[in-house]
Amino acid sequence: MNEDTFINSLRRRSPIIGDDCAVIASPGAKDLLFTTDFTIEGIHFRAKTSAAEVGHKAVARSLSDIAAMGGTPRYCFISLALSPSTNDRWLNSFYRGATRLLERHGVKLAGGDISHTSVFVCDVMVCGTIAKGQALLRSGARPGDVIYVSGPLGGWRHKRTIVPRLEIGRQLIGKATACMDISDGLSLDLHRLALASGVAAALESIPLIKGASLRQALDDGEDYELLYTARRGTHVPGIGIGTIVKGKPGTITLSGRPVPQRGYDHFQHRS
Amino acid sequence: MNEDTFINSLRRRSPIIGDDCAVIASPGAKDLLFTTDFTIEGIHFRAKTSAAEVGHKAVARSLSDIAAMGGTPRYCFISLALSPSTNDRWLNSFYRGATRLLERHGVKLAGGDISHTSVFVCDVMVCGTIAKGQALLRSGARPGDVIYVSGPLGGWRHKRTIVPRLEIGRQLIGKATACMDISDGLSLDLHRLALASGVAAALESIPLIKGASLRQALDDGEDYELLYTARRGTHVPGIGIGTIVKGKPGTITLSGRPVPQRGYDHFQHRS
Repeated sequence: MNEDTFINSLRRRSPIIGDDCAVIASPGAKDLLFTTDFTIEGIHFRAKTSAAEVGHKAVARSLSDIAAMGGTPRYCFISLALSPSTNDRWLNSFYRGATRLLERHGVKLAGGDISHTSVFVCDVMVCGTIAKGQALLRSGARPGDVIYVSGPLGGWRHKRTIVPRLEIGRQLIGKATACMDISDGLSLDLHRLALASGVAAALESIPLIKGASLRQALDDGEDYELLYTARRGTHVPGIGIGTIVKGKPGTITLSGRPVPQRGYDHFQHRS
Repeated sequence: MNEDTFINSLRRRSPIIGDDCAVIASPGAKDLLFTTDFTIEGIHFRAKTSAAEVGHKAVARSLSDIAAMGGTPRYCFISLALSPSTNDRWLNSFYRGATRLLERHGVKLAGGDISHTSVFVCDVMVCGTIAKGQALLRSGARPGDVIYVSGPLGGWRHKRTIVPRLEIGRQLIGKATACMDISDGLSLDLHRLALASGVAAALESIPLIKGASLRQALDDGEDYELLYTARRGTHVPGIGIGTIVKGKPGTITLSGRPVPQRGYDHFQHRS
């Protein structure tokens, strides 16, 4: 079993699983969006990372998922399993980093849980809203659509501060045919988008951040840029990187040559 | 800093923090309830516990919080940090245990996150609903109210399967003046209820489960029975254990003698 086959087995039980957020109808004019993301010592940050940066990243990962659906984040729940190294001072800095980003986007801290274990584990849940039926899904890309990213890629090894692309996400409502954020690497995430849409993807060129290699941009993950498609001629922000084509669902080429999926899979890292 | 002073520091930033669930107004006839609970290897279960029991417990902890507010659980999000010992077979059993309990209460599995670390960590978030303004809070107990529990206490060392008291919680709507679930032990949880209500508590007798000691019932935690108060004369289910009285907020006596708070505090177990 790998991460995607496992998630597919859950999706058979529950069809709302599988996009960046779960979309839940509410009685008002809005749908509710829910997303939850772990931030774990040794996996998502190194022991030397400052507590405020960890707090920022923990929140930014979930806000990025709300952005990927075109939504507006409203409430945040932060659950922490404290480790021996997370003393009171560390914890206060962590919350400063987290709440600064929440306040910038008008999101209310609404709760969480506290526990402890041997490594620091944070789980952030964000609830957002979007106009009914307008959530950007992964499944709407059609042959002929242009593939875009919201910015240059290859970010992870270059330790950029994550900027959740909320404004761009909202601009894509009614325009993008499919959208997700790049958290596990372009090659794996575009594969997922193409698979969900039942199409293939032909990449032409990939914008790199300064110092990044093409391999890093394809496979490293943690870019947190948006990846989306739109009909040719629709005016959207971002950088065009290729075209959606007919073909075996989920297959990707770059300049005509097959691109393997080497993105991050937590099932492969278990042992 | 201990767990309660830390949560109080968060509450100063966000007044909706501090009850069993966050209560969020929605545009419809219902309020939304949110709760999130960790279930961690070595803290909440032992390595030899069966995977199906772990899955049951992970979900039951959050359903108990919904019960404590009088709510009805609707959607569940399960996030897992896999460890080397959680192989595919373990994981399938875990989900069997979790989904069996969800299905019994008509709750939809709606998403989650997957990661990995050295010990298995599960975080379960449940979203529930309750009629607008009807959520049972911790803060409404008044002198003269009778204190009740939904069943006998001292459960933790006796490894009972948690039964979330959802039906009893719903029966308390409009009747209980305050309510919470007992997760950290009667002495600490009743202290929190009394503190939130600005009152003191005089315990008279405590019902014990077979084989449990009074000390276990007061301090062990993990009972997951409901603890609630109601005006004398109001007909509610459960077992009367004492009376709310005037006095220094949060103080508790049993048969006239002070009861110290020895319940579980994760801040004290960090290192």
